[in-house]
Order: sequence, then structure tokens, then C-alpha cells
Amino acid sequence: MRPSEELLRALVDRVSGHVLRPPATTDPVIRYATPATIADAFAASVGLSFAANEAAHSDDALVAATDEVFRWSVHTSHPSFVNQNFAGPDPIGVLGDWIGAALNTTGATYEVAPVFTLMERAVLDKLASLAGFPSPAGDADPPAGMFCPGGSVGLLFALQLARYRLDPDIIDRGSDGRPVAVFVSESGHYSTKKAAVLLGLGLDAVVTVPTDADGAMRPDALAAEIATASAAGRRPLAVIATAGTTVTCAFDPLVAIAEICADDDIWLHVDGAYGGSALFSPTQRRRLDGLERADSFVWDLHKMMGMTQQCSVLLVREPSRLEPCFATRADYLFQPDKRNAELDPGDRTFQCGRRVDVMKLWLTWKAHGDAGFAARVDHAIEVADHVRARIAASDGHFAPVVAGDFTNICLLWVPPELRPLTLGDLDDHTRSRLHALGPRVKIRMQDEGTALMGVQPVHGINCFRLLFMNPRVERADADSLLDLIDRYATREWVS
Amino acid sequence: MRPSEELLRALVDRVSGHVLRPPATTDPVIRYATPATIADAFAASVGLSFAANEAAHSDDALVAATDEVFRWSVHTSHPSFVNQNFAGPDPIGVLGDWIGAALNTTGATYEVAPVFTLMERAVLDKLASLAGFPSPAGDADPPAGMFCPGGSVGLLFALQLARYRLDPDIIDRGSDGRPVAVFVSESGHYSTKKAAVLLGLGLDAVVTVPTDADGAMRPDALAAEIATASAAGRRPLAVIATAGTTVTCAFDPLVAIAEICADDDIWLHVDGAYGGSALFSPTQRRRLDGLERADSFVWDLHKMMGMTQQCSVLLVREPSRLEPCFATRADYLFQPDKRNAELDPGDRTFQCGRRVDVMKLWLTWKAHGDAGFAARVDHAIEVADHVRARIAASDGHFAPVVAGDFTNICLLWVPPELRPLTLGDLDDHTRSRLHALGPRVKIRMQDEGTALMGVQPVHGINCFRLLFMNPRVERADADSLLDLIDRYATREWVS
Repeated sequence: MRPSEELLRALVDRVSGHVLRPPATTDPVIRYATPATIADAFAASVGLSFAANEAAHSDDALVAATDEVFRWSVHTSHPSFVNQNFAGPDPIGVLGDWIGAALNTTGATYEVAPVFTLMERAVLDKLASLAGFPSPAGDADPPAGMFCPGGSVGLLFALQLARYRLDPDIIDRGSDGRPVAVFVSESGHYSTKKAAVLLGLGLDAVVTVPTDADGAMRPDALAAEIATASAAGRRPLAVIATAGTTVTCAFDPLVAIAEICADDDIWLHVDGAYGGSALFSPTQRRRLDGLERADSFVWDLHKMMGMTQQCSVLLVREPSRLEPCFATRADYLFQPDKRNAELDPGDRTFQCGRRVDVMKLWLTWKAHGDAGFAARVDHAIEVADHVRARIAASDGHFAPVVAGDFTNICLLWVPPELRPLTLGDLDDHTRSRLHALGPRVKIRMQDEGTALMGVQPVHGINCFRLLFMNPRVERADADSLLDLIDRYATREWVS
Repeated sequence: MRPSEELLRALVDRVSGHVLRPPATTDPVIRYATPATIADAFAASVGLSFAANEAAHSDDALVAATDEVFRWSVHTSHPSFVNQNFAGPDPIGVLGDWIGAALNTTGATYEVAPVFTLMERAVLDKLASLAGFPSPAGDADPPAGMFCPGGSVGLLFALQLARYRLDPDIIDRGSDGRPVAVFVSESGHYSTKKAAVLLGLGLDAVVTVPTDADGAMRPDALAAEIATASAAGRRPLAVIATAGTTVTCAFDPLVAIAEICADDDIWLHVDGAYGGSALFSPTQRRRLDGLERADSFVWDLHKMMGMTQQCSVLLVREPSRLEPCFATRADYLFQPDKRNAELDPGDRTFQCGRRVDVMKLWLTWKAHGDAGFAARVDHAIEVADHVRARIAASDGHFAPVVAGDFTNICLLWVPPELRPLTLGDLDDHTRSRLHALGPRVKIRMQDEGTALMGVQPVHGINCFRLLFMNPRVERADADSLLDLIDRYATREWVS
């Protein structure tokens, strides 16, 4: 059963080589391939799929297959990967992740995760203090939240906590079917809808609040929607404010929203999955002013901060609510006659077995310090500011689609004959050609492996969306991305 | 920002050393320590907690801190770790996990996870065929399920699918508050309760079905409970049958249960988080006869099969239900104008960003083949059978608490004056001394680092629970564990 040491060493060499020598700008960010091409590539070694009676493969074949995995995968550490709300995994975070995997345990109990249980408390305390949430008074108090497998799951748990506060009978009796309302901006993440469905609130419970031109929730509109819902007999359950929307990275105005929630005693959840990391930067944290008044907060450290998937926390104002909301006191696991059982996190969350996502964050934070984490955030915004300045100085070559001043750039490439662009003046044919241009450019970039960037509709027209957070991306790299857009778009527009 | 290559290499050396040279039997399985001791140990390098303004630490301090992490953690690969329903991480699985982390992407779309999207389909197809579930007819059909962050989450999704079949309006309208009933045996996992609460069904919806002496659900009792719940106006929503209960590893009789569910048109979910892996063994798979008639099935490959946390799948009979149950069609992510977008798994599950847990399973399976996976399961049962034989031949030295014939051993150590043990004959004082013995023995084992095994109440008295699944554990290792119990218990009983 035990594999050969030669095989293990060969795999260690390959995977650690990838971390020690991440792809350079001149390497392809992706070798785009169809499923058939990828399947063909694996056919030479172990095959991608499994036979009815799959044989064990040789060490050589396994190493060759591993090479194919790297060969055909997207390189999210590459300076030209600006496609997603994550990029540039921190190499220390990757190794911290490996340590957690090598020690493979569950975060459910102190007994099997003594170090990681204490690390969780330390990290949650620190994150809570950055968020302005109360810190536990002593070691006997529960920590300020929990680690979750992703921001969507964190939001799900937050809404359950909100429901439990509104109606403690939900635990035993379940939903009484009375309609509730959850408010989220029209730019908010789709996980609110998913959570509302899973909790049994239904999509009808989700009220979409209009935003301003930059994509931030309008507090006046929120107040109006709350009044409308209440008048229609829907109990306001929670407001989901977004700190860093997915497309334009808008920050909802938390102070004004918190005021409204306080007036109506509505649970305020802040979805800072992406933008929460602004808290690390003394110059950026003002974007989350008012967060200290929220009831709960989700923060994905696997987004801006380069932790590997996944590293999410849910912070809560009143951690004492976690246990009554989530506990079932399984006697085989959370036994009071085990030492230090009061530290077991398992009955304060939904998950049972749970990967120790804290290890990578703890180690990376210790390596970089507060200043290093601030620098990662500040550097990202400096590069994004540089791109904004280049767009502004491009004589109409590029047009910003939303203003924005954080890490996300949404832009249109403007054909020469349309400069300076006035979207409202476009006839339907031109508008639809421009809309179709983005996906065509993206395909060319993928095929040549030069860049991977988002293309998506804003105000009904496909724009390029570039997210800057990878510390390896310098201004020159960002310049190259604009040059690439220009080169491909020029060619595709006339073809 | 980029850490020094020396630091990265030092960390790679340490973590890969742990995989290449896992702890030997003579090494401690744990250096048990209080939180204060662990905090002191870290104080010499980087400190466990974070200062208000945490500095960046030196490479030397970070390496020293990493050594402390290994020093104070539980070694779940150790032959004397039989504490949990996971043990003995497969080294290839660990390295496969590292590859996924190094390439750090999300399993949500083909665009950013082309290889892993195809691997998921290949692995889900193969697992579905082992479970006797229908395989997708063609590449255009969705795969037979999804990867989940743990079995509890998989069960949650399965119950949502059940609710959606019973009442499709749940998606838009939400719960109508009409009471439902979910049936699970009294030995079933507590995640059924947690899921019932989170979905808004409430604990009242969970009906506990009596078991036989070995801990398996009694079909006659299930039929009776269904009739009672229906008569009381609760709609039967789902039956959760357990394939491998947590404590004794009992297998509920699926054929009889499936018959009852078919008669009443009730969703049958099989929780095979632990015992699902019996399907890998031609001689063991009979334990899950009837599974092919279930509607959904959860299977944790991070339990018996040694994958790192976590590696869970939810398989479903009708994959076409996944998308209407979970989709929200976020237009920035799942755009129809992206190539191969029909392969995107993201709209068939709840999670958005999602770690590529498939990589480790795919690589390990290719390395061992079907026969190697079968051998892991068969070896575990051979060792457990050996222990059962030793208990039977112990002249009353040890007493089995439940019969069992899979990987779990629940036993009592019997004081000389009570041999052969008849539990019913014990007076209260002796019974309570025997009950208190287990935790005391466990503490000694922890303090001396000799073993980590479960101690938990069965029939109201603490027994030792040993789970065998680590392929490094041979008969001699199991003998040593019994000897350890005898040695400590003898000493503690008279002290």
C-alpha cells in the first residue's frame, strides 16, 4: 500500500517547484484546451477517467500525469491572471496549507487539534479586533466567530443566527411559514439568494435594493424597501450589506445602513468576502466604517489576501449565540469528561469534520506582520490606481464603465471611430458588436495563453473586468494587460 | 512581499519530511499539553497570539514556530491513532492535496479549473457506478453529484433536494410551515439534527427510529414511526439510513428500508460518510445492498480512504434536479458566452469558490487502482477481526460491547474480580467506577503519548472505541493497543 519513496519525492519536487518558481510573465497563464484535448493528453499516462476495473499505474505514469495536471491548469499565481476575486496565492500560505494537510486532523475538538484550536482563537480575536467587534473577555468565553468553507456558507450561518434571534423557536419547531424579508443590494452576491432558498425562506424573501451609479446600496432605497416589505406583512429578518461587490467592488455605506437596522432592530450582516481585507490597510479601512455596529461579518482571506481555497471566517457580535443556534451535543464527540473540552469549537458551528484552514493564515500573518498585510492591500490599489490613470489619459482609447477606486477595473475598449465613447449614442448594431467583442478578445487571450481576465456585462454591455490583488503584478504588468486588450480588440473589431 | 527562498525551502523540507517519514510506533502519537504549555512553547519564536501591531517575524523564528506546530500536534498517521473515523492519511493523497493548493483555483467553472472539472466528472461517474447509481448518458448530462465540504454539508444538500421534490414551491415561496418528518436511527449521526435546524424544519421534525442490538435501524420500527408521524399530520420528507454508524459502525438494512420508502414515496438518503467505502471491497460491498435504490448518498473519502480533510461527495439518482434546486445563474460567473460553460459545476451546488478536493482522490485512485482501494478496506477489517478474535480468546479479560464485524471495536476492560463480566450484575458503585475508568486510562495514554483512542458511553458505560483503517496498522500494532489498555487499566483500577 505504501507508495515508493521515489514516487513521493518526484511529486514533492514537482509541486514544491511550482511554489518556489511560479510561472513568469512570459509563461502561458493557461494552455486553453477542450475536454477532448485534455483527455487525449492524459491518455498517454494514466487516463483521465476510470475503467470498470482500474489498474494501479506505474510511478512513471503517475509522474507524467501530474505533469499534465500542471500543464493544462490555469496559473492563478501568474501576473496576467486578473480574472477572479482571488489571485496570487501567497507561497507561505500554500505551505501552511500543506502543513495542515500533512497533519490531517479536524478542527472540531481540542483533543485532536490542540495547536489549531488555539490558533483559531488567536486569529479570530485579531480579526475581530480589526473589525471592531468585541473580543472575548477571557479564555472561558467562546471566540468571536468560526472558520467556514467559503463565504457563501458563512452567509448561510449568519442568516440562521439572524433567524434564531428573531424567533428562538426556530430550533425546535422549525419555520412557522410566516414570510420574512432579507435585503441585499442589486449588486450583492448571489449567495444571499442561495442561502434564502436553503434556509427555507424562499427567493420571494430576498428584496433587492437599488444602488447608486457606482454600485453601492442606497440607504434611502433600503429604508423604503423595509417599509414596503413590512407593510406587506413580511418581517424584516436581515440586511446584507456588501463591502466590496463582485463586479465593481462597491462598498455599501455601513454607517447609514447600521442606523436603519438599529432603528428597526434588524440583523445587519456585512458581506466582506472580498472587501473585508481593506481592514488590513490603515488608509483603506475607512471603507468599512460602521462595520463595528454589524451583527455578523463574513471575510474571505482566500480572496485579496492570497490564502488558498478556502479560508473564510464568520465573525459575530454575540458569540454566545453560536452554541444554542448550532449545538447538538453529540456525546461521542463533545464529552464533558475530556480535558479542555470547553475549547472544542465543534458545537459552535454546523460542520463536524473540518479542515484546519487557520494554519495557513496564522503562518502567513506571522511572516508578513500587520504591515505586510497592509502592503499587499495598498500595493493592489496602487496598481489599480495606475490603470485608472492610464485609462483617463488614453484619449478615449479606453473608457471606464464605473468610477471605482479599489482593486476592480471595469473598462471598455473603444474602437477608433467611436472615440470619445458616448454609450447612449450607439446604434443597436454597433452596441451589439461592441458587446460581442469582449468574449471574442477573451477567447484569443485564452488561445494564446497571454492573459485571463473577466468579461462581463455592466449596464448591458460586456466590459473587461480586471482585478488587481496579486503582489507579483507591477505597473508594467498592468500596462501589458491594457496593451493586450488593445492589440486583440483592434484586430477583432475589424475582422 | 515575496518570502525568501531559504524560508520556503526550509518549510518544504519540514512538511515533506513529515510525509516521507511519518511518525513510527515508537514516536509519541501526541505530546499532550494544556493551552498554557502550548502558548509558552510558541512564545520563544513568534508567539501564538497576535499583538495589536504584529511585527513580521524572522525566517528562523518562523521555522522554529513550524517545528512547534508539528511538535504539539496529534499525529493522525501514527499507528496508535485509532481515535477517530479518519486515520492514516494516504501520502499520495496528501501530495495530491498539495497540488490542488499550489494551483489554487476554484472548482466552480471549467474556465479556471479545466482539468479538475473533468476529473470531478470522471471520479463522480466511477463512484456512482460503485454505488449502483445511474451514470450520465453523455457528456452533455450533468455528473452524478457534487463534491462537498464534509458529510454534514452533503446531508444538508440532500435534504434540500428531498424538500424540493416534495414541494417545488420551496424555491420561490419558502417553507409553508407545514410540519414534516425526517427519520433517522437513534445511532445516526447528529448532522441530521443540525441540517433539520438549518433548513428550518426544526428538531421536532427529526424522528428517531429504534435500532437492534448492534445499532442498525429496525425496519419494522421505521414503518411504525412513519405511520405515527403521518397520523399526526407530519408529511414524511426523508429517511436517513446510515451505512456505518459513528460508534459501532452498524449498517442499516437498506433493502428493507428502500422498500418502505418506495411504498410511501419517501426520499431515501443513505449516509455512508464512513461505511460507504465498503463499496470498494468486493467482499464488503454487500453491506450496502439496496443502495442502488436510494435517492441520494453521502460518502466521505477522507474517512476510511485516508484522503485529507475534506473529500466528500453527494451522489444523487437524478442529477437533473441539482440545477433547479441550487442555481441562481449569476451572470458574472456562469456566462453562456464562455466556452464549455455547460460544464461549469457552480450552478449545480450551493458553494461558489470551492477547493478542488477531487485532485487528491483522483491521483490516489490512479496510484492504487481499484484493487489497492479494496486492499485498504480489507486490511482494516482483517486487523479488526484479529482484535475481535483476541477479545474472544481473552478469557474475559476484555468484553466486547457490541458484536460488530467492520472496523470499529467497542470493548470494556474487565477487572480481574469481575471476570467474566455480566454488566447486569454490577452494583451501582462498581458500575460507576468502571464507567470512570475509561477517561482515566485515556488521560494516561495522552500524557505518555502512547496511544489515542476513543472512550465513550455505549449502553450507559464508557467503553474503549478503536477504529482500524490506517494501512500502517498491522496485527502487532493492534495487539500493542490491547496491551496498553490492559496495562493502564490495571494500574488505574486499583489506584
